[in-house]
Amino acid sequence: MSVYLKDIPLQQAQSLFQSALAKYHLWKILRVETIPLDENAIGRVLAQPLWAILSSPHYHASAMDGFAVRSAATASALPASPLSLACPEQAIYIDTGDPLPDWADCVIPIEAVEPLDKTGSLAADLRNPSAIRIRNAATPWQHVRPLGEDIVATQLVLPAGQVLRPVDLGAAAASGHTQLQVAARPRVAILPTGSELIPVGLPPQKGEIIEYNSIVLAGQVNQWGAEATRFSIIPDDFAQICAQIQQAAATSDLILLNAGSSAGAEDFSARVIEHLGEVLVHGVAVRPGHPVILGFIRQEALPAEPRMVPIIGVPGYPVSAALTGEIFIEPLLARWLGRPAWKPPSVFAQLTRKITSPPGDTDYVRVVVGKVGEKTLAAPLARGAGIITSLVRADGIAILPPGSQGLEAGSEIKVRLYRAENELQNTIFAIGSHDMTLDLVAQFLTERGRRFASANVGSQGGLIALRRGHAHLAGSHLLDPATGEYNIHAIQQYLPNTPVRLMTWVNRQQGLMVRPGNPKGIHTLQDLVRPDVTFSNRQHGAGTRLLLDFHLSQLHLSPFSINGYTQEEYTHLGVAAAVASGRADCGLGIPAAATALGLDFIPLYNERYDIIIPHTYLGDDLLTPFFDLIHDRDFRFAISSLPGYDLSQMGNLIIP
Amino acid sequence: MSVYLKDIPLQQAQSLFQSALAKYHLWKILRVETIPLDENAIGRVLAQPLWAILSSPHYHASAMDGFAVRSAATASALPASPLSLACPEQAIYIDTGDPLPDWADCVIPIEAVEPLDKTGSLAADLRNPSAIRIRNAATPWQHVRPLGEDIVATQLVLPAGQVLRPVDLGAAAASGHTQLQVAARPRVAILPTGSELIPVGLPPQKGEIIEYNSIVLAGQVNQWGAEATRFSIIPDDFAQICAQIQQAAATSDLILLNAGSSAGAEDFSARVIEHLGEVLVHGVAVRPGHPVILGFIRQEALPAEPRMVPIIGVPGYPVSAALTGEIFIEPLLARWLGRPAWKPPSVFAQLTRKITSPPGDTDYVRVVVGKVGEKTLAAPLARGAGIITSLVRADGIAILPPGSQGLEAGSEIKVRLYRAENELQNTIFAIGSHDMTLDLVAQFLTERGRRFASANVGSQGGLIALRRGHAHLAGSHLLDPATGEYNIHAIQQYLPNTPVRLMTWVNRQQGLMVRPGNPKGIHTLQDLVRPDVTFSNRQHGAGTRLLLDFHLSQLHLSPFSINGYTQEEYTHLGVAAAVASGRADCGLGIPAAATALGLDFIPLYNERYDIIIPHTYLGDDLLTPFFDLIHDRDFRFAISSLPGYDLSQMGNLIIP
Repeated sequence: MSVYLKDIPLQQAQSLFQSALAKYHLWKILRVETIPLDENAIGRVLAQPLWAILSSPHYHASAMDGFAVRSAATASALPASPLSLACPEQAIYIDTGDPLPDWADCVIPIEAVEPLDKTGSLAADLRNPSAIRIRNAATPWQHVRPLGEDIVATQLVLPAGQVLRPVDLGAAAASGHTQLQVAARPRVAILPTGSELIPVGLPPQKGEIIEYNSIVLAGQVNQWGAEATRFSIIPDDFAQICAQIQQAAATSDLILLNAGSSAGAEDFSARVIEHLGEVLVHGVAVRPGHPVILGFIRQEALPAEPRMVPIIGVPGYPVSAALTGEIFIEPLLARWLGRPAWKPPSVFAQLTRKITSPPGDTDYVRVVVGKVGEKTLAAPLARGAGIITSLVRADGIAILPPGSQGLEAGSEIKVRLYRAENELQNTIFAIGSHDMTLDLVAQFLTERGRRFASANVGSQGGLIALRRGHAHLAGSHLLDPATGEYNIHAIQQYLPNTPVRLMTWVNRQQGLMVRPGNPKGIHTLQDLVRPDVTFSNRQHGAGTRLLLDFHLSQLHLSPFSINGYTQEEYTHLGVAAAVASGRADCGLGIPAAATALGLDFIPLYNERYDIIIPHTYLGDDLLTPFFDLIHDRDFRFAISSLPGYDLSQMGNLIIP
Repeated sequence: MSVYLKDIPLQQAQSLFQSALAKYHLWKILRVETIPLDENAIGRVLAQPLWAILSSPHYHASAMDGFAVRSAATASALPASPLSLACPEQAIYIDTGDPLPDWADCVIPIEAVEPLDKTGSLAADLRNPSAIRIRNAATPWQHVRPLGEDIVATQLVLPAGQVLRPVDLGAAAASGHTQLQVAARPRVAILPTGSELIPVGLPPQKGEIIEYNSIVLAGQVNQWGAEATRFSIIPDDFAQICAQIQQAAATSDLILLNAGSSAGAEDFSARVIEHLGEVLVHGVAVRPGHPVILGFIRQEALPAEPRMVPIIGVPGYPVSAALTGEIFIEPLLARWLGRPAWKPPSVFAQLTRKITSPPGDTDYVRVVVGKVGEKTLAAPLARGAGIITSLVRADGIAILPPGSQGLEAGSEIKVRLYRAENELQNTIFAIGSHDMTLDLVAQFLTERGRRFASANVGSQGGLIALRRGHAHLAGSHLLDPATGEYNIHAIQQYLPNTPVRLMTWVNRQQGLMVRPGNPKGIHTLQDLVRPDVTFSNRQHGAGTRLLLDFHLSQLHLSPFSINGYTQEEYTHLGVAAAVASGRADCGLGIPAAATALGLDFIPLYNERYDIIIPHTYLGDDLLTPFFDLIHDRDFRFAISSLPGYDLSQMGNLIIP
């Protein structure tokens, strides 16, 4: 058997799997069970239509507190000529919900009668008088809930396939049901494999990977109405994996075998499945996530009639694993439960930057979606299969069909949403230069009903995005070498026709981040050209990069004499991580990033970090909570506990 | 204390309640608890922002199965001039996810190398050769996932208030967390009261009401993230209700006291709450649902510092009860959990018929929403507080502010949706005359991904609705007295300018429904004018009503000589229920309705029931599954098991 995968198109993989499931009688509701009608039935799926056993109300019921009478007997009552009815012969008090006596056909509300005692005076006991006096005729069936007003026996109350909601249970109970026939929850076994994995709770050593795919998959599976069982991590051992799969097959309807499904040394999955049953598909042309395996395990309990248990080899990369859940597992569970498959809402949005896709693959692109002005925008997130945070941040997924090979910026794409469309209105799009305080902005705005989606593309990138109408605001710290001023020149250059507000956000130190104790003795920019020093740079267009270039030119130092000048990171923390890991010896950045990763910091410069907001958005209610933060004590306190920030000019309007 | 309620406006009630909660320090997260990071955390709400403890990856990891090398050592490799690197000194095999050796800075995928054995021939063991031969230079950091690529230690991973999803748990684990700080689930006690109530499971006698509000409320409360405890039904006894409330107060954060809150004989709620604490609000101007009580129970555990436990007196009518959940309970639980309150999506829709509202009330109107052609329509459902099925059928709620006093047909209203907006596209709007087979259509279409919303307004009403563009199809059985033909004349009259298809659906018997054994000896229409016979009629415009009028005129019988001629029901089953309950002695209708309620049936006529579909919708994919039913064996079998139907002409096109 080849270790190499053969990717087949997604649709072909789905239809092969579905045909095989149908062949094994596994493409329908798996089992039906009877459960009591109580609140634990919420979320279960009705396996049969629910027809009413009882009518509701199941008798003619009073809709008011009042007196039951015969309407015909009240015909002569007039305001000026009241009529008395004897109690309880002609009128009898009943409460809301009480049955109407057989002889009565309507109810007069208690407020509309004068209760009389034996002497004909007003009675003290409203509900038990000797007679009542009325001044208006009653109409037949007034204030009566007739039998069957809500539900008539035999009518359809709920269709099969209904995912039960609280009110559905009410209707089921009202129509005389005491139990419900629902689809049994499919049992799903999740088997993480890999000698490099350690469970959540142990501190990972280098080369060890925290195993959390099984938690994500179990969470998905439970959310979709099945019952997940997580197995312990199985090391890369053929016999052990076989044994665990056989155990899982005996007690489960579906097996998810996680990791070990890439074509490497630890790829036991396909061989194990081949050994215990059949491999139907090995490799699906989906990005990210192609080393998916679809197959069946043969259960030999009754050799004449082996039970076939579907097994899905789920790729090890977390984004691939989670998407495999959505693509292959959810539709199968929907089928087994007899409910409609998940159909997310979708919107059309304009792509904020170019994306490229492998030619043969169906490409699942995670995007942040929001509205800037009249435009609905989709900003692609990191593409890597290992970036779980791209799924956390995603508002949705754009699916590019095979053959598209990507799309240009500005293209209109359809996005399947993870959030309700109305939530997208709450997203503030920030773009431009990164600053640690933006994480705090995100947290504080969450508490105030806004989402703060920030993309770090550097100061210049931010200004360009504002020009294109792709963001509400941009953070920028572009030093003009000629004047020593910040941002004004750049605004004139990039946004000549866009009226904007330029507002000081923070003043912050910039300096060199070095490893603790500064082992290479780096103190100035001059040290960067030393052959034993490797530098980690920010990307072209970043304010920090401009600051570096400005000072290098002041010092007549050539960028090309610096090791690592072309190694670009997109955030301050990225540079700090490069230094902390030893990939570089130093980088220019802010002290907060150095502190965060336990680095030493050598202050060199002070710089202003501003926020630029086009006038168009200033009056928008969306941004109000953002401006409120400037004067928020808790927010300022949170920033002041980060190192190297000066808030004395926060909120100053350089351009109003 | 007065037994009468004093309704205050909804907003005032909400703000009074909120102020009192704030005063008692109950308008914030109630308690924080630490839970393990596993799939059971799904749906819990983060009480603190989650900052990364670890970076992910927490070391430079290979992104491919391949050989780790130093890029500088590969510079001279060319396709025509390959380069050999010695293993393991210059190149070492690593799997995906393995750490990069300190000396290496990139990975060459296994597919791109030629493994060599000691003799310089191609090696059999791909992963353990003596050397590798490469034909391209490698670039620094290629196929490496650098430390922190996904998550950089100290960054914000998830904000406080996040309702945890499967991928969130993945990111939390990846960033080094093993436990989570979440808001504790509020404990909610639900106390049903009322001597007339019986629990689900007992067959109800006349005057007894099945208690299911506690199930609906418990389902809501659990769905919203709290923990419901249902108490047993408490009879209307002041002391017993007091005792149970005190027990609930000791162990709960919120008490829901259901029923007994109207102003009738069984109204203990307000008095009990006054006795045990304070009543803040008694009556809210909301329709349906006004007898809401908002108050607090005083817990005297520490007399100096009494604990105040909020209590909500939930009205007894099921629609009022469920809406009280949405209006008062959900926002409170959201606050206690620190998550955003539920904000349903909304659409604007055109009202299909006039609605009236009480002047001072905020009116919650349940509507079916769907798209017919380009129009989004909202069809109001039954308004009564007792009609739980109106909530089951509702796609959303239109909230009319106090003072609006209703709206005309055709008005544009904003509807808060219970369903995702994209689901509305699947709704087939049927209107017109009722037939029992439409329940089966609804069930069969559910299985085929469509919702079938049928409104019963009679045959004429259906034609008018089609003319207004308010439905996709209409059921009609309008007999033309002049020709004996069905529906053609009516289509010419009501839809002169609308091209439509007229298709036979079923032929069905019409006749008189009478109580079993026909105690009043009713056999013909002549019997209807007998003074001892009461008739139950269909509404004006219904085909059955026209059939009756036609034959009455043939027989020269005056409608005004029939007792009950003006008593209108809107469905066949409604008429049957009137007869079954004794409210009437007979009614004209179809045998299926008679059979359903165990009535006798006296066949009088045969009539054709047609479906009318404007040509505009014929090509619409929406209706395809409806047309498919005509030839569906299972569907036809299901109809044929109802009495009195002849399917031989089903699908015949009278007008194509």
